[in-house]
Amino acid sequence: MADNHSLDQLVQALRCLPGVGVKSAQRMAFHLLQHDHEGAQRLARALQHATEQVRHCALCHTFTEGEICATCQDPRRDASLLCVVETPADQAAMERTGAYKGLYFVLMGKLSPLDGVGPREIGLQKLFDRIDAPDAVIREVILATNFTAEGETTAHVIAQGLKTRGVQVTRLARGVPVGSELEYVDLGTIAHALVDRR
Amino acid sequence: MADNHSLDQLVQALRCLPGVGVKSAQRMAFHLLQHDHEGAQRLARALQHATEQVRHCALCHTFTEGEICATCQDPRRDASLLCVVETPADQAAMERTGAYKGLYFVLMGKLSPLDGVGPREIGLQKLFDRIDAPDAVIREVILATNFTAEGETTAHVIAQGLKTRGVQVTRLARGVPVGSELEYVDLGTIAHALVDRR
Ligand SMILES: [Zn+2]
Ligand SMILES: [Zn+2]
Repeated sequence: MADNHSLDQLVQALRCLPGVGVKSAQRMAFHLLQHDHEGAQRLARALQHATEQVRHCALCHTFTEGEICATCQDPRRDASLLCVVETPADQAAMERTGAYKGLYFVLMGKLSPLDGVGPREIGLQKLFDRIDAPDAVIREVILATNFTAEGETTAHVIAQGLKTRGVQVTRLARGVPVGSELEYVDLGTIAHALVDRR
Repeated sequence: MADNHSLDQLVQALRCLPGVGVKSAQRMAFHLLQHDHEGAQRLARALQHATEQVRHCALCHTFTEGEICATCQDPRRDASLLCVVETPADQAAMERTGAYKGLYFVLMGKLSPLDGVGPREIGLQKLFDRIDAPDAVIREVILATNFTAEGETTAHVIAQGLKTRGVQVTRLARGVPVGSELEYVDLGTIAHALVDRR
């Protein structure tokens, strides 16, 4: 394949995907070129479009195509409740329970000093500023980071930062199995943990 | 994420990749949009470019950007030897041994009746036509399909088709561990199996 720069470049480019090594990338490239040109071109357009269109909501940090996401704009949401989650997938899991009507703050990550992810990288100051804002009506912050070691540490650090800010700080009840990640937990468990938050 | 069509479309589009389910696709989309816009755009360009540029070599069927691939064009290759492999990755594994100087025919698959892959889909008639061509100088066909059930069946069917064609038909020696796939086999084993072909 020495003369095949397009193929080599595709194999290299596929390795930007998390969990994809050189063998997987070769298999993916082979599959796309041999069996799914249409899927490959759709993926190319989706990548281009998403990297151009998707940004972070100015209020909650989740992915959105506008300045403010639809959830933050929704007047029916209870603005006195703020739920802090790690990722948009976790937020989506919360939403699917139908048990939560407040707003969100999406960290887009978790504290992980070994990976160079500190308070700045997950936007903690923006979270605190939002709670401190003169027009803020937040009464309660629900910490819904994952029940992993890093998620617990993140929740702990946020709780410390909120101590002096006059808001109630709660954590999803431990109905969520320890060591698991929210997006893989069944809806009933999440809903129950939400009711039992402490 | 109800207002986020670009993100939803990206997640859907990523599922065209083999082995990628909805959870993996969400993780990939999150990673690209949060941490690797550059990688995502490079991947978009590589996909677009490869689907436009890469075609099949008119002689050996492997991926190439021209009409005839570099290997088939190389006058130093021994045109009396034709090695039949399943995929370009297998061909690349053969090349890395440095032990083979003949030409190739790449099936771009293997016989798999349950998946609807028959002799036509792997281009067997083109293989036979190439051997039958008046100007053909092929003396020996080395069957280097994988040592899996489907690879063995494919080798058997090709061997049957070649019986009456006056070429010697050999198979890589079983130095290659049974049940394994060529591209994962170490070079020494492949080289040895090539010398011991039967
Ligand atoms: Zn928002
Ligand atoms: Zn060729």
